[in-house]
Amino acid sequence: MLEDKINLKAKFEKFTKQWSPRVIAEMNDYQFKIAKIKGEFVWHNHKDTDETFIVREGEMSIKFRDSEVKLCEGEMFVVRKGVDHKPCADKECKILVVEPRGVVNTGEAGGKFTMTEDLWV
Amino acid sequence: MLEDKINLKAKFEKFTKQWSPRVIAEMNDYQFKIAKIKGEFVWHNHKDTDETFIVREGEMSIKFRDSEVKLCEGEMFVVRKGVDHKPCADKECKILVVEPRGVVNTGEAGGKFTMTEDLWV
Repeated sequence: MLEDKINLKAKFEKFTKQWSPRVIAEMNDYQFKIAKIKGEFVWHNHKDTDETFIVREGEMSIKFRDSEVKLCEGEMFVVRKGVDHKPCADKECKILVVEPRGVVNTGEAGGKFTMTEDLWV
Repeated sequence: MLEDKINLKAKFEKFTKQWSPRVIAEMNDYQFKIAKIKGEFVWHNHKDTDETFIVREGEMSIKFRDSEVKLCEGEMFVVRKGVDHKPCADKECKILVVEPRGVVNTGEAGGKFTMTEDLWV
């Protein structure tokens, strides 16, 4: 049976918690996750994988140890594996993240933001 | 040195040819490609991989042998590996496709739409 299509806006309406990514689809061993972010995340990196951020609504910045990139709606950025980064947003920003299944959102940094399991929406 | 961010709208303005996907980013061994589509593509499948379609502007449909899914802006669909499909669009539609590097757009179907190399934009 055919799977349902995925409406991003409708998926964003199904949760409110910030910094709590929700899986909306899988492609092979990769996942598409949506998240609402506001404030500063923790410094971390993913030693085994790149990670893609696509802004769906609002603005965010990704801080690096020696620079920063600002992303608006319709802009994307691929953070290379092993690169320390810290996502931030002054106002709530809605993002789509693409990365392999099993990637922990805080890398090895741990802390209160760490997701211990996949939450689907 | 930090890579540039990617602005999807700006990337779409850099080419006009339809059914001619352009690579805009790579994440590990996956590629993000954008395409402008209009009319009917060929029936094909990708025997080794899923393929993700995200509509950025306009409307498209993906025909399957026994059904069809219509996608509007902000909607996405993952076509499972091995599943025959035929992308179509009545009016020009702008899409983002995510799939592994090396996937041929027409699968093994061949024909005039077949991309023989990666075109970056």
